[in-house]
Amino acid sequence: MKLLQKNRCFEGEQRVYQVESQHLKGASKVGVYLPPAALEGKACSALFYLAGLTCTEETFAIKAHAQRMAARLSLILITPDTSPRGDEVAQGDHWDIGQGAGFYLNATQQPWAEHYQMESYLVDELYAQVLHEFPIIENQVGIFGHSMGGHGALTLAFKYPEQFRSVSAFAPICAPSICPWGEKAFSQYLGDDRQTWLAHDASALVQQKGQMFEEILIDQGMDDQFYSQLNPEAFKQACLDASQPITLRLHKGYDHGYYFIQSFMDDHLQFHAIQLEKVGDM
Amino acid sequence: MKLLQKNRCFEGEQRVYQVESQHLKGASKVGVYLPPAALEGKACSALFYLAGLTCTEETFAIKAHAQRMAARLSLILITPDTSPRGDEVAQGDHWDIGQGAGFYLNATQQPWAEHYQMESYLVDELYAQVLHEFPIIENQVGIFGHSMGGHGALTLAFKYPEQFRSVSAFAPICAPSICPWGEKAFSQYLGDDRQTWLAHDASALVQQKGQMFEEILIDQGMDDQFYSQLNPEAFKQACLDASQPITLRLHKGYDHGYYFIQSFMDDHLQFHAIQLEKVGDM
Repeated sequence: MKLLQKNRCFEGEQRVYQVESQHLKGASKVGVYLPPAALEGKACSALFYLAGLTCTEETFAIKAHAQRMAARLSLILITPDTSPRGDEVAQGDHWDIGQGAGFYLNATQQPWAEHYQMESYLVDELYAQVLHEFPIIENQVGIFGHSMGGHGALTLAFKYPEQFRSVSAFAPICAPSICPWGEKAFSQYLGDDRQTWLAHDASALVQQKGQMFEEILIDQGMDDQFYSQLNPEAFKQACLDASQPITLRLHKGYDHGYYFIQSFMDDHLQFHAIQLEKVGDM
Repeated sequence: MKLLQKNRCFEGEQRVYQVESQHLKGASKVGVYLPPAALEGKACSALFYLAGLTCTEETFAIKAHAQRMAARLSLILITPDTSPRGDEVAQGDHWDIGQGAGFYLNATQQPWAEHYQMESYLVDELYAQVLHEFPIIENQVGIFGHSMGGHGALTLAFKYPEQFRSVSAFAPICAPSICPWGEKAFSQYLGDDRQTWLAHDASALVQQKGQMFEEILIDQGMDDQFYSQLNPEAFKQACLDASQPITLRLHKGYDHGYYFIQSFMDDHLQFHAIQLEKVGDM
């Protein structure tokens, strides 16, 4: 991991690294917040945060206002980019597909399959690299995200529960198989066989896998301009059917953006810290 | 004031307004954070925050991470743009002059004098408008800022202490008459007579005016890449000479950017809340 930038922040450091990814066949940037404890070499819990459409590895660090509480709770924050990047990487026709819109899965269709392997990049490659590079407690890694990144967090958590021991989301795309964003992305990345989509659909996954986590926290703004893309009620019902405990909080007046996310960020960090400590106690 | 945008944030609202300014001869945007108490119509203290070179009315709202504590302390936050804007407004040859670099003064020289009247815009025009528009306690308004905006906050506070009852700054340009940024801006905006510059130089002003505030808080990063432009020691010495109490905190490892600012934002908001409460008790 090549260090590109570092800035002192709440007695820790906000950093940006570049990773040479074999899965993505190219360089990818990743933001890393190291709390003071990590700078002192103490072992910390870590969280992956997956951002939404159009975002980059930088969005979270600037807009989510997480560093203060992460410093206090000694949480390392890992914020990858939202897709492969570069001139040789296929572009989309709109901001909901292609660069900035990788959907955290492995594409099987052309022109995407060559570089769009975000799932393997995150779970196999980046995960191992950050555990090697930073003082992370091996079984105390959680995952959360926003919108497309909320979809990513929920699906990767249910597919790789040994790697991600806690999960939460802000306004996640909960049932991508049945919303316009998801139908467009899945048909292009995965092809027309809707059966293959279900392995990347949080609501289908929880029904298939059953309870995996002691608790899931989801926050959703009730004035979210993209509410029709998100289907939080479908996911909640799937959790209830599967006996997966879930707390879905609906917030009056809040929309889809980072002013919403920052308002409830501390709650999510505290949620993960508590869940991961419980894992540590097992 | 025309409302352009609002987003729910920490149970308050982050808003953007457009103001038709007679002084600037054009429209200017301003960010306003209203804490929950203000939305309920309760009278609140207010702070003007002046941003630095290249920033806009939006920078603070996104990057300074102030809304959480402002909500808790019931502080209204007013964040004007850093210069007049528009096709008809003179451009500079570099990011340290012209649009995005108004230096919070009234230009007397061409081509700047026509629109670059930020001091009058802020003190006469915007100040009256926000007091009319929002539930602000009249004698509980403070001012703070960063870099060029720290210069603006310090100078406007000492020139208009009846309007600004508390003042603080992050990495302010403390002696613009003797630093490259200030010399360039002042010679272009104010002309070559250095005597006229002193009315816009915080270190000169405090020597001239003497104690005006119970306390001034300044935070400065020791790894600030623009340290040579800022001269905090000169201002501290001027305060000591003038018996103006000052707390200048030097922070190891911090640079000039918003990761530094956000790390100490809560301290500044609490400082102003305490100072303004004292004024209210008089």
